[in-house]
Amino acid sequence: MSAHSERLQALRAELAAQGLGGFVVPLTDEHMSEYVGAYAQRLAWLTGFGGSAGTAVVLADKAAIFTDGRYTLQVREQVSADDWSYVGVPDASIAAWLAERAKQGQRVGYDPWLHTRADVRALEAALADAGATLVATDRNPVDAIWTDRPAPSPAKLAVRSDELAGRSSAAKRADVADWLTARNADAVVLSALDSVAWALNVRGADVDHTPVALSYAMIHADGTADLFVAPDKLDDAVRRHLGNGVRLHDRTDFGVNLVNFRGKRVVADPERAVAAILDRLEQGGATVLALRDPVVLAKALKNDAEIAGHRAASIRDGAALTRFLRWVELECPKGGQTELSAAAKLLEFRQATAKLIDTSFSTISATGPHGAIPHYHVDEESNAPIERGQLFLIDSGGQYADGTTDVTRVMPIGDPTPEMRDRFTRVLKGHIALATATFPDGTLGGHLDAFARRPLWEAGLDYPHGTGHGVGAYLSVHEGPQRIAAPNYPGGAAMEPLRARMLLSNEPGFYKPGEYGIRIENLVLVIPRDVPGGDRPMLGFETLTLAPIEPTLIDPTLLTDAELAWLNAYHGGVLETLGPELEGADRAWLAAKCSKLG
Amino acid sequence: MSAHSERLQALRAELAAQGLGGFVVPLTDEHMSEYVGAYAQRLAWLTGFGGSAGTAVVLADKAAIFTDGRYTLQVREQVSADDWSYVGVPDASIAAWLAERAKQGQRVGYDPWLHTRADVRALEAALADAGATLVATDRNPVDAIWTDRPAPSPAKLAVRSDELAGRSSAAKRADVADWLTARNADAVVLSALDSVAWALNVRGADVDHTPVALSYAMIHADGTADLFVAPDKLDDAVRRHLGNGVRLHDRTDFGVNLVNFRGKRVVADPERAVAAILDRLEQGGATVLALRDPVVLAKALKNDAEIAGHRAASIRDGAALTRFLRWVELECPKGGQTELSAAAKLLEFRQATAKLIDTSFSTISATGPHGAIPHYHVDEESNAPIERGQLFLIDSGGQYADGTTDVTRVMPIGDPTPEMRDRFTRVLKGHIALATATFPDGTLGGHLDAFARRPLWEAGLDYPHGTGHGVGAYLSVHEGPQRIAAPNYPGGAAMEPLRARMLLSNEPGFYKPGEYGIRIENLVLVIPRDVPGGDRPMLGFETLTLAPIEPTLIDPTLLTDAELAWLNAYHGGVLETLGPELEGADRAWLAAKCSKLG
Repeated sequence: MSAHSERLQALRAELAAQGLGGFVVPLTDEHMSEYVGAYAQRLAWLTGFGGSAGTAVVLADKAAIFTDGRYTLQVREQVSADDWSYVGVPDASIAAWLAERAKQGQRVGYDPWLHTRADVRALEAALADAGATLVATDRNPVDAIWTDRPAPSPAKLAVRSDELAGRSSAAKRADVADWLTARNADAVVLSALDSVAWALNVRGADVDHTPVALSYAMIHADGTADLFVAPDKLDDAVRRHLGNGVRLHDRTDFGVNLVNFRGKRVVADPERAVAAILDRLEQGGATVLALRDPVVLAKALKNDAEIAGHRAASIRDGAALTRFLRWVELECPKGGQTELSAAAKLLEFRQATAKLIDTSFSTISATGPHGAIPHYHVDEESNAPIERGQLFLIDSGGQYADGTTDVTRVMPIGDPTPEMRDRFTRVLKGHIALATATFPDGTLGGHLDAFARRPLWEAGLDYPHGTGHGVGAYLSVHEGPQRIAAPNYPGGAAMEPLRARMLLSNEPGFYKPGEYGIRIENLVLVIPRDVPGGDRPMLGFETLTLAPIEPTLIDPTLLTDAELAWLNAYHGGVLETLGPELEGADRAWLAAKCSKLG
Repeated sequence: MSAHSERLQALRAELAAQGLGGFVVPLTDEHMSEYVGAYAQRLAWLTGFGGSAGTAVVLADKAAIFTDGRYTLQVREQVSADDWSYVGVPDASIAAWLAERAKQGQRVGYDPWLHTRADVRALEAALADAGATLVATDRNPVDAIWTDRPAPSPAKLAVRSDELAGRSSAAKRADVADWLTARNADAVVLSALDSVAWALNVRGADVDHTPVALSYAMIHADGTADLFVAPDKLDDAVRRHLGNGVRLHDRTDFGVNLVNFRGKRVVADPERAVAAILDRLEQGGATVLALRDPVVLAKALKNDAEIAGHRAASIRDGAALTRFLRWVELECPKGGQTELSAAAKLLEFRQATAKLIDTSFSTISATGPHGAIPHYHVDEESNAPIERGQLFLIDSGGQYADGTTDVTRVMPIGDPTPEMRDRFTRVLKGHIALATATFPDGTLGGHLDAFARRPLWEAGLDYPHGTGHGVGAYLSVHEGPQRIAAPNYPGGAAMEPLRARMLLSNEPGFYKPGEYGIRIENLVLVIPRDVPGGDRPMLGFETLTLAPIEPTLIDPTLLTDAELAWLNAYHGGVLETLGPELEGADRAWLAAKCSKLG
C-alpha cells in the first residue's frame, strides 16, 4: 500500500474515532493565504497533489479531489485513481458532489480555521439537502494523524523602518482608529498576514516569496493594537519598534482572546477572516461588523516612500533582467540550456545586485509549448531544453527591501515565425492601449480591461486570464483589492474603483496550446492625469518596470504612429535609466534593443 | 389649502383609519413597468411631481419625496415645500430616512402589489432598527381617497401574426415548458407586460409608447397558459388566436389564483414580480423558484422575422427622419421654430409613412442648454425657441408593427463652434469604436462600454449615462436583460453576456451644462463574426439605424483612416438604402450629407 493510501486509511480511522462520516480538506491556512507554508500543506500530504489550488473531500467509502482546469493533467499524474475520484471545478462543485453522496444523518466535518463563513454556509446547505449535517471539528483530523508534520517556520520578525514604510505604524493605526470611530466600532481583526505586516511595519519570513510572519493582530479604536505571534520570533529591536502601543501575545492565544468582546462592535472581513474568528466573536457576545479589512485599501494606495522604493527596485531589477535577456539571446540558441538553468541564471543576475531577499514568486521559465500554460511551474520533472525556433517566456520578480517586482518578457530562440510576430505585436498593442489609457477617477478595473484585449479580439483571439493584479510594497506580489480583468472576474476585484497610487501589473498575453506563449508584463502606477480643458479628475498609468521589449518580435507595420511613439519613448526611458547601471557589452546590447522603431 | 395639501391631509386621515402611522408611495405599477398608466400615477396625484422616477413617504407629522439627480430642480418646482421635504437618492435612502424618523411601535404601510420583495426586506430591516413594523395593506390608502382616479385603459388586445412574430405562441410556450421541465418546475408567472405580450403573440394599448395590455400570464410545464386580462379587451379574433392552449381569466382573479399551487414548484422572477405574487404563492403552499423570467432572454434574441421587420422599420423611419433633418437645417435658422414645433414636425413626417402606431417614447426635442439634460422632457412650460448658434438634439423613435426604432441626431443651427465639432467628433469616434468592436461570444456589455468613452476620456470628459440599452420588437424601447454600460450600472444589466441576435442602442454623448448636448444613437444587432485564423466564436455589431450623421459637425482631421472608412461606408449604405425612399430635393440633400469625407 502506498504512503498516500495509508494516510487516507488513517484519516478514515480518525474520522470514525471522532464520530465523523467525512471531512473536507482545503488548500489554505488560517489566514486565507495565497501561498501556504509547509505546516499547512495538508492536501499535498494527504493526496500527493502538488498544485496551488484544490480541495479534497473524504467520505467513509468515497474520496474526491477537486481541481480547476490548470491541473486536469497534473492531478491525474500525482494522485492515485485507486483512492480518489477527480472532479473538475467550477463545472462541478464540492457542495453539489456532497449533496449527491452524503447519507441521511451523516456528520461531515470541517476545520473552521480553514474556511470562510460563505464556504461553510454553502457546504451546510448542500448537506442539509441530503439530510446530513456539517460539523466544526475541534482538532483537525489530518493534523491528528500527521505525525511528521513540519513545524511552523521559526523565522524572526524584522523591523520595517519608517523611512522605507513611509509612515509610522502609530500613524497607520491612528488612521485605522479613525475609520473604526466613524463606524462606531471598537476594534478590527487583522487576519491577513500582509495586513498585519503593513499595519505594524514588520516583515517576516514564514511564507515562501512573501515577507510576512504567521500572526494575527487586532487594532482598537484608541489606536493601540494586540499582536499575536510566537514569542521566539520577537527580538529586542522588534519589541522596541512595536512600543507600548502594541500589546504582545502568543499566537496560540488568539482564538481564546476573541471571546472577550462582549457588547463590543468588532470588524471582521468575511473574505479574509475564517469562520472560526466570526464564530468566536459571536460566541463571546460581540457584534460582528462584516466589513472589508480597512488595511486592504490603505495598503493598496502606495505612499511617496513606497513609490520611491519601487522605482529604485525597478532600476536594480531591470538591469539584472537586461543582463539575463542578453544571456538568453547569446547562449540559448547554442543549445544545452533548459528552463531550470535559465531560471537559475536569472536568479544569479538578481543575486548579483546584493539586495535580493527572495524571488517574489516561483519563476515561470517556460519554453515552447510550456509557454502556452499561463501558470506553468518548472521542476526537475517538467524541465525542458530551450531549443531554436521556440519562444522562451520568463515571468519573474524579486523581493527587495524597497519593493516587490514582477515582469514578463519573451525572447525568440533564433528567428520567430511571422505568426509569432503578429501575435506578439497584438499583445504589445493591447499592453500599450492600457498603458496609455486616461480614465475618470474611480473607474473600475473591469471597465478598462477590454482595451488590452481588442487587438487580439480583432484577430479572433483572447487570453484566459486577467490583465492586471495589484502588487505590494515588499509584500505580496498579488495584492488586492484592485484588479484589471473582465468585470465578472471571480471575487469581484475587477469591480474595485481604481485610485491614484495603486500599483498594478499590465500583462496581456496570447497562448497557442502545444506551440508557444506570449506575455508582456510591466508594473504600472495609477497617477492623476491633468487634461487641459477636461471637466473632471482623470487618472492614467505610469509604467515603472524597465526592461527592453524584444524588437525582433515586433512587426512595426501593425503599430499606429501613437503606438510607435509610446514604444520608442518607453525604450528611450529604459536606456536612459538602465544604461548607467550596465557596462560594456550589456550596455551596448541594451542600446541596440532600445533603438527607435518605425 | 391647495389640492395637493388636501390630498395629503386626506391620506393621513385614511392612514389613521387603517391604524397606520405611515405609508410608502412608489412610482410603479403591479408589473414593475417603466412607463406607468394614468390609473397608477399615485405619486403624481398625491404630490404634483411629474418626473418618471420617485417615491413618497408619508408619516403622521412628516412627509418626504425621494428623487434622483435628474429631478433636483423639477421636484422643487412641482411639489410644495410646505408639505414635503426633498430628499436626493442615492445619496440618501428611503430606508435610512425611515430608520431615523419612524417611532417605536409605529406601523408603516406598503402596498405589496407595488414593491419587489427586496424593497420590502430593506424597508422592514430599516423599520425594525427603529422598533417600528412594516405592514402590507389590503387596500392601497391612496386609492381609497383617490375618488376621481382614472379607470384602466379599455383598449382591446390585438393579435400579433405569426408572420411578424416569427414564431407561434404555441412554439414559444413549448420552449418555456422545456425550460420549466429542465428545472423540475411546474409553472412560471409572467408579470412583466412585455413578457406576456411576447409569449402569447398579442399586443395592447394600455401603456403610453409601449404596445402592451394590462395582464398577467402563467405558463405551465405542459405548454398551456392562463391569461388574466379584462374580458372586454378580448374580441373573437384574439380568442381564436389564443386557442384552447390558453385559458382566459379576468385580470382581477390573478391574485386569488396564486394560492392554488400547493406542492407545486412555481418560478417567479424576484426583479419583475411584486412581493404580493411571491407572498400568495407561498401562502398557498407552492415552492417559489426565484429565477429570471425565461421570456426575458428568449425575447431579447430576435428571430429572423423580427430582424427583417426591424430592417424594414429602420428604412421607413430613417427616410422620415432624413426629411425632418433637412427641414431642421432649412427652417430652424430662420427663427420661429421651437422644441415643440420641431417634435410635431418630426411626428408629421413619421405619420406620413402611414405605418406609425405610436412614438416609442416621449420625443426628446432639446435645443441649446436643454440638450445638456440627457433625459430632457419638453412641454408647454419648458418649450424653448430654436436659435442660431445652438445645437439641436433630437432623440426619438417610432412604434411600427414590424419594429421599434430609437435614434438620436444633432444638427447645428447655423455654424457650430470648433469646440462643438471637437466634442461631436469625439462622440462619433466612441460610437465607431463600439460599432466596429469584435469580441468573444458571451462578452459582458460592461466589458465593452469603455470603447465608446475613450475618445472623451482622452479629453478629460465623459457622459453620465450608459452606452446602450436593449430594444424590443414592436415592444418596449427599453428592454432587458442586456446593456452596454459601466460594469457597476445599477441592476446588473451590464453584467449580462452579449449573444448573437440581441438588439441594442449605441449612444455615447457629451453634455456641457448650460450650453449644449450631443448624442449619436444608432441601433445595432449583435451578429456572429467569422474571423479567419481566430480560435473561438466571435461576435460583432451590425448597425441597423439609417440616417445621416451631420458632416459639418465632424472634424475629419481627428478621425483615423479606419474611422473615416467606417463613416464613409455607413453613409454609403444610408444613401443606397434611403435614397430610393426619397425624392427630389430630399434625395439630393441626403446625397450631399452622405458624400465622402477625408
